[in-house]
Amino acid sequence: MRIAQVSPLWESVPPKLYGGTERVVSFITDELVRLGHHVTLFASGDSVSDAYLEAICPQALRLIPGSFNREAPMTLLLERAFSASDEFDVIHSHLDFLGFPVARRCPTPVLTTLHGRLDLPELEPVYREFSEIPLVSISDAQRQPLPWANWQATVHHGLPRDLYTFHPQQGQYLAFLGRIAPEKCPDQAIAIATRAGIPLRIAAKVDPADRDYFRERIEPLLDHPLIEYLGEITDAEKNDFLGGACALLAPFDWPEPFGLVFIEALACGTPVLAYRRGSVPEIIDDGITGYICERMSELTAATKQVSLLNRRRCREVFEARFTVDRMVQDYLNVYEQIVSDHSTAALRSLMRSVTNQGLTAPAIC
Amino acid sequence: MRIAQVSPLWESVPPKLYGGTERVVSFITDELVRLGHHVTLFASGDSVSDAYLEAICPQALRLIPGSFNREAPMTLLLERAFSASDEFDVIHSHLDFLGFPVARRCPTPVLTTLHGRLDLPELEPVYREFSEIPLVSISDAQRQPLPWANWQATVHHGLPRDLYTFHPQQGQYLAFLGRIAPEKCPDQAIAIATRAGIPLRIAAKVDPADRDYFRERIEPLLDHPLIEYLGEITDAEKNDFLGGACALLAPFDWPEPFGLVFIEALACGTPVLAYRRGSVPEIIDDGITGYICERMSELTAATKQVSLLNRRRCREVFEARFTVDRMVQDYLNVYEQIVSDHSTAALRSLMRSVTNQGLTAPAIC
Repeated sequence: MRIAQVSPLWESVPPKLYGGTERVVSFITDELVRLGHHVTLFASGDSVSDAYLEAICPQALRLIPGSFNREAPMTLLLERAFSASDEFDVIHSHLDFLGFPVARRCPTPVLTTLHGRLDLPELEPVYREFSEIPLVSISDAQRQPLPWANWQATVHHGLPRDLYTFHPQQGQYLAFLGRIAPEKCPDQAIAIATRAGIPLRIAAKVDPADRDYFRERIEPLLDHPLIEYLGEITDAEKNDFLGGACALLAPFDWPEPFGLVFIEALACGTPVLAYRRGSVPEIIDDGITGYICERMSELTAATKQVSLLNRRRCREVFEARFTVDRMVQDYLNVYEQIVSDHSTAALRSLMRSVTNQGLTAPAIC
Repeated sequence: MRIAQVSPLWESVPPKLYGGTERVVSFITDELVRLGHHVTLFASGDSVSDAYLEAICPQALRLIPGSFNREAPMTLLLERAFSASDEFDVIHSHLDFLGFPVARRCPTPVLTTLHGRLDLPELEPVYREFSEIPLVSISDAQRQPLPWANWQATVHHGLPRDLYTFHPQQGQYLAFLGRIAPEKCPDQAIAIATRAGIPLRIAAKVDPADRDYFRERIEPLLDHPLIEYLGEITDAEKNDFLGGACALLAPFDWPEPFGLVFIEALACGTPVLAYRRGSVPEIIDDGITGYICERMSELTAATKQVSLLNRRRCREVFEARFTVDRMVQDYLNVYEQIVSDHSTAALRSLMRSVTNQGLTAPAIC
């Protein structure tokens, strides 16, 4: 198939550091190329891909310092990606609702994967307005606020099989990986680890918006012999960081739409300790690949039982359900479905138009 | 005519406090209604207008505290304003380039007034991409970075004739009105006033982005007997503030695309002291309605000559060139021009289509 992948411009594809959406776009794109599809990637010019790169701007927008009108390259992206109507069989947008006005006016079928949380009240009117647009959710839980949307499938994220390696040896510390932000509850992770008496290593970036939270609420807690704060780490460092842990401690208190970090841990053979929120019950099998808890006391207790879980089983679940080849096969099925639906609709419209022309043609002939 | 006015959602129409674009949209809209046109205003729900209000969101986006996805109502605005294709003879967009992708796909003619500065390098690619879109500049100077764009006219802003009243009496202080921001040079205004020994009153808001600048660079200068800082003032307070001044001191060091404050001062009969930047030479007649200077020493000297200028002449220039009826007549001329161009293009396209159908129709009949 001839496929356009439309990435946000915030990070490069793949991102240099943190950036879930652009990492997933990178995995999908390179796997589609490997399978022999003709793929064009619309992204920032510092992206690296096996596909043909349509560079919209020289650099990822997050990296540009000072005042810069970020809406200018985004507007250019919308035009370029959705105007090349004859070149693609399907356009796969990762821009959430931003692409909807042009997608609705685009003669090529457009599929949109929603990467963010949908439970914000200001989002409902825009999804209502565009309720016919075909969507993919990244977990069933993500759909909950918009059950009436035109959902085509849930496609769980996947990782390249060999990006992370199986670590059979049980580690001696808990790992926290993510952003330092209130909804990720690093303070709870610290409280759980210190109560359980197990070392906790924290690898996390601090966004400018969260700097006050870090300084006031988290930094004072880091001065404890069991707690080690590493800052932001690279993809290469994640393998040892996650693989060396006895468990991923992820007491996130928000409906995480997917949570790449869960399957990164499983790929290393590391079980996951998390609250029953958002996608967690779809990814973690309670008592097999981790423990799903309701309260902090349960999570604390679970840290002591995690050594009973089979690390090889975690890796097997990753290989069976969360690899990039499974993800891309799921997407190809959806592409074929919407291309077929689109052809049927186009044929119906053509038939109507021919019938109408048959009636009016004599006046013209 | 049936006319859509499409306002940004950042402020209500008119804005509660600061907000040049939404004020101008308000003036245009109400004057068009007064002239008997059928006007629909797309804006935030807290707007107040004589036109039919299409409320996109309940509240102006600037007033919403905390995290809120502002792109959601903006996307809704694009869809609603540009999809109602049969309802309007012309759509007048004040969204700068944000409306271009939908405007290009809209069967109704769309006119866009550019309200911002255009000399930022990141803007050029997006205006190049959409170079056929009909544009209005708010000063000739504003066009300078994009001389090749599809400019239809320059339409200087205008104010309701009686919004500000003529103050014949020469005031005893200089007035500074605007944002506290480096490009507005409040520090120069303070230096000029203290060197000249003339009191300076500063009415200005401080945006969150400029708070450090205010605290570090401006606040220490305010502790001088000649300087009085009033904070942000309302439209009603502006009349006395500007009218009571001997001159508006506006040492702005950036290419102001228009500068409503210049004509607000003239409406009160107050002359303007400014640098030769952006729109200034188009609005101020040097030696008649103010002094246009090159250097700070010249501006300082000019504060002493400003009493020689005729305040009534300032008001007369305002009435002749900067009222809302002149502005709206200019816009109506452009509306008629683009509607006519659009009909011609549509007719040509129809002729081509009829010719083509004539050739292919036998195969269908």
